Amino acid sequence: MSQTHHAILLISCPDQKGITAAVTDFVFKRGGNIVDAAQHADAASGAFFMRMEWELAGFGVAKDRIPGEFAPLAEKFKMSWELYFTDEPVKVAVFVSKHLHCLFDLLFRYKSGQLPQARIELIISNHHDAEPLARQWGIEFLHTPVIAEAKAQAEQTQLAALRGKGVGLVILARYHQILSEGFIRHYPRRIINIHHSFLPAFAGASPYAQAHQKGVKLIGATSHYVTRDLDQGPIIEQDTARVNHRHAISDLVEIGQDLERIVLYRAVRWHLEHKILSCGSKTVIFE
Amino acid sequence: MSQTHHAILLISCPDQKGITAAVTDFVFKRGGNIVDAAQHADAASGAFFMRMEWELAGFGVAKDRIPGEFAPLAEKFKMSWELYFTDEPVKVAVFVSKHLHCLFDLLFRYKSGQLPQARIELIISNHHDAEPLARQWGIEFLHTPVIAEAKAQAEQTQLAALRGKGVGLVILARYHQILSEGFIRHYPRRIINIHHSFLPAFAGASPYAQAHQKGVKLIGATSHYVTRDLDQGPIIEQDTARVNHRHAISDLVEIGQDLERIVLYRAVRWHLEHKILSCGSKTVIFE
Amino acid sequence: MSQTHHAILLISCPDQKGITAAVTDFVFKRGGNIVDAAQHADAASGAFFMRMEWELAGFGVAKDRIPGEFAPLAEKFKMSWELYFTDEPVKVAVFVSKHLHCLFDLLFRYKSGQLPQARIELIISNHHDAEPLARQWGIEFLHTPVIAEAKAQAEQTQLAALRGKGVGLVILARYHQILSEGFIRHYPRRIINIHHSFLPAFAGASPYAQAHQKGVKLIGATSHYVTRDLDQGPIIEQDTARVNHRHAISDLVEIGQDLERIVLYRAVRWHLEHKILSCGSKTVIFE
Amino acid sequence: MSQTHHAILLISCPDQKGITAAVTDFVFKRGGNIVDAAQHADAASGAFFMRMEWELAGFGVAKDRIPGEFAPLAEKFKMSWELYFTDEPVKVAVFVSKHLHCLFDLLFRYKSGQLPQARIELIISNHHDAEPLARQWGIEFLHTPVIAEAKAQAEQTQLAALRGKGVGLVILARYHQILSEGFIRHYPRRIINIHHSFLPAFAGASPYAQAHQKGVKLIGATSHYVTRDLDQGPIIEQDTARVNHRHAISDLVEIGQDLERIVLYRAVRWHLEHKILSCGSKTVIFE
Repeated sequence: MSQTHHAILLISCPDQKGITAAVTDFVFKRGGNIVDAAQHADAASGAFFMRMEWELAGFGVAKDRIPGEFAPLAEKFKMSWELYFTDEPVKVAVFVSKHLHCLFDLLFRYKSGQLPQARIELIISNHHDAEPLARQWGIEFLHTPVIAEAKAQAEQTQLAALRGKGVGLVILARYHQILSEGFIRHYPRRIINIHHSFLPAFAGASPYAQAHQKGVKLIGATSHYVTRDLDQGPIIEQDTARVNHRHAISDLVEIGQDLERIVLYRAVRWHLEHKILSCGSKTVIFE
Repeated sequence: MSQTHHAILLISCPDQKGITAAVTDFVFKRGGNIVDAAQHADAASGAFFMRMEWELAGFGVAKDRIPGEFAPLAEKFKMSWELYFTDEPVKVAVFVSKHLHCLFDLLFRYKSGQLPQARIELIISNHHDAEPLARQWGIEFLHTPVIAEAKAQAEQTQLAALRGKGVGLVILARYHQILSEGFIRHYPRRIINIHHSFLPAFAGASPYAQAHQKGVKLIGATSHYVTRDLDQGPIIEQDTARVNHRHAISDLVEIGQDLERIVLYRAVRWHLEHKILSCGSKTVIFE
Repeated sequence: MSQTHHAILLISCPDQKGITAAVTDFVFKRGGNIVDAAQHADAASGAFFMRMEWELAGFGVAKDRIPGEFAPLAEKFKMSWELYFTDEPVKVAVFVSKHLHCLFDLLFRYKSGQLPQARIELIISNHHDAEPLARQWGIEFLHTPVIAEAKAQAEQTQLAALRGKGVGLVILARYHQILSEGFIRHYPRRIINIHHSFLPAFAGASPYAQAHQKGVKLIGATSHYVTRDLDQGPIIEQDTARVNHRHAISDLVEIGQDLERIVLYRAVRWHLEHKILSCGSKTVIFE
Repeated sequence: MSQTHHAILLISCPDQKGITAAVTDFVFKRGGNIVDAAQHADAASGAFFMRMEWELAGFGVAKDRIPGEFAPLAEKFKMSWELYFTDEPVKVAVFVSKHLHCLFDLLFRYKSGQLPQARIELIISNHHDAEPLARQWGIEFLHTPVIAEAKAQAEQTQLAALRGKGVGLVILARYHQILSEGFIRHYPRRIINIHHSFLPAFAGASPYAQAHQKGVKLIGATSHYVTRDLDQGPIIEQDTARVNHRHAISDLVEIGQDLERIVLYRAVRWHLEHKILSCGSKTVIFE
């Protein structure tokens, strides 16, 4: 919303007295105007989480020197921390197979200005269905057929393209291939998937058919970070919609697609706004 | 709502031409004014479901003679069918352990006139917590301690009480004991349970702790008919509520209780209004 | 879903005994297989509403002769009625100004096969913003600038285009012009508007600014038939989304757009499936 | 949840650099462990809002001396501020007329431990319906008949009772009398009302009848602080539920009561947890 640029600091550390005051003081002493600050202490794990956002205008330290100045404080409190700047948008690649609704939705929002923190650099697919869409929107398209024996090769091609573009976030917008552990290791907490069920229910293949078979009265969608455990990564967002006995599987698919679009979008947006922290296998979201 | 009494016919049979017309005609020819009629053809199983409700006033056949007159039609279409009358309320027993919120909610609605089709005859518990409440509302209370070695004995006592009262519906309003297969067999599709999760996720014990551990962003509640497969019976109703990282397990419990109350109430009400049909392991609900 | 084509009969008449039976009998006697039948008696007005859908395959009367055969029954019960066939899709024109999200959404669903009952023939706008989109999707675009003194002229052009295409449904997908009473008279219950508030709250201009000013905790969207009373026509569908003090007007706009898309889509779909009947200034929807 | 007691500071002031840091520093320097801190800058009004919660254990200033120590800082930033302690629960009076569902709900939650910050001291009514309930729960009941000519007298009696009990929060749990401006002046932002509509739609009398008449597809409930403008005070919480053409007014009443209970409870709880600040005619809620 704002024209001025901000710095955003994400912190995790063992909980103790004085962290909030110390970080606030760090920013204030250097002339930073705090725009937003949020913290959370997780009673179960004894961990403390903080997100601090302040205006760069008037801040007395150049962007590239902030890490150095913050290091002693970080060390004192044994912090894991990340620093982001809103004038440095994230480069994004979208992976998709044959269902294009999520891709379509992301592209329309992107074009409408709803994702100002992103630069969509690349659309990657094991099929050709998304190609006209990519061309229409002027985004580079990479076709990487995934055939059993050449899967490793396809991933090498994909990784090279991601590196070439400096991609910082991979979105699996209904990409129906399982990424290898090796691939995932390159993008820890940097791959967001949309699964078309209310996880942990109906993990794996054909979740709408599973839901129909079970006779649930609500269907769901789940966006999560991808880890090596299929459909088990930290959940970012979920939502549900009402269904009933009149709905065939094809109706669930249709109703579910509206959920998938919005649940994936929210996750992507929060990630791009640096509002998500990891708490073991869970997420802390300062929305 | 209405002062006049109605007959309600629930029908399941193989789908074929002419069922709706035949049943409509059956009622009309005998002077019945149809108040509501709904049908559903399940494409997957080829089964047809119908619910027909008509006014008894002006109907040319006495209540006890309707089954006999309907039998030839039922046979022709190979129907399973049930017939109910709104002037014959269902006698109900509520089972509960130590959490009283669902019981409390049902009792308040009952007293407020929201369950006119029910007569709550009995509250049964393996604890004494609900006893003052039962006394306060003037409902008979039966304490049946469930000790491992005497479980069968407890169930015999319960069954005898249910029979004595002519109970037609058993509500498990957070009753933390597993009913034996033998018990369940006496009340097929006549026992409604509330499970405090969005089934099939988090079946079994401590669903809120499971949900907290998993880091889901919505919690749920599910009401279902009880079968011998624990937490696997036909789902009647479900709902979800949003939670986040700030919520401890105790918060999930509290938020979830509001879901449980409403999800159980809806199931009970639909059952009492004879709006639920069984379709294999699923339900068809003509709400 | 089905490959076979259906007839759909929508009926309103004073409530009395025997209507359901008579209509069911009419279809059955002519060999029609009833696929869906729903009825509603409105206690307040004493009106009866019915929707009957049956397969044309095997029906003993040709489409064009059904009205003649049904007329005596209709007369007997003083019915208002409409007859539709699923093999005759509705021709649609979409009016839009500068906000394209609803148009975009409809076009994507249309292309994805979610609106098989429609043929989108025309996009009409008082601006040029939607023109590239129309071209991209291969749909005719008509630019009709609406200037105060030439408004009547613009509407004449629009009406001529609608007539030329045989348009049966006009969708106002965020069209920021008030249609004249003369225009509306040509399409009674055939113009669907999306209003970006939970009507009757915040009718008129700038509803999101009004909502922000008022400090509501939910915003809404409403789709309705257009009548000569601005934002007062029969409501078809509504939905709401949660907002809070952190949301600026621009955030409400963004959150609201997701509501608008889905609320307009549902109304359009129900209309195209002939599931909506009028009950005075209200709607009866047999979804 | 916590056993240790906390101090809570609510602050409003003109936005400027350094407020967060100054308040954080104030608490930290005196040995306070910050448990929660939230802030909000309202762009439209230029106002800044903050809620700071810290542990009293280990804090170096006695409770009664905190205001004095904080005063210079408050003056410097031109703050309006309030200070609360979680070991000082709020004394509450509930006003009710004939509909008891909200009262009932609050009492059950209160007894279940969901409102640990409250002491319900008094139930006041212009009718006798709630009297047995009050007796049953051991809460003092005051009957103050409100007859046109004696309304002022009734309010005097009520005010005297509130003063006698040291009441700090008045809950209008479906109290169908309009409080005089004089009464309201004694409890600014200390009277919470539940209105049975989605305000600003259907203010005034019989909102469910209004909603039914209008044919809305969702009904709502709104909790708000009471000001001298009827049903126009700052909104605290709202929610909606789906209805359709089959629902009579009596159904709306029933569905709405479930909304009212939860929407009132949330408002009461946030108020008791000191999470609500006033921003002109709106609320800022740090939930």
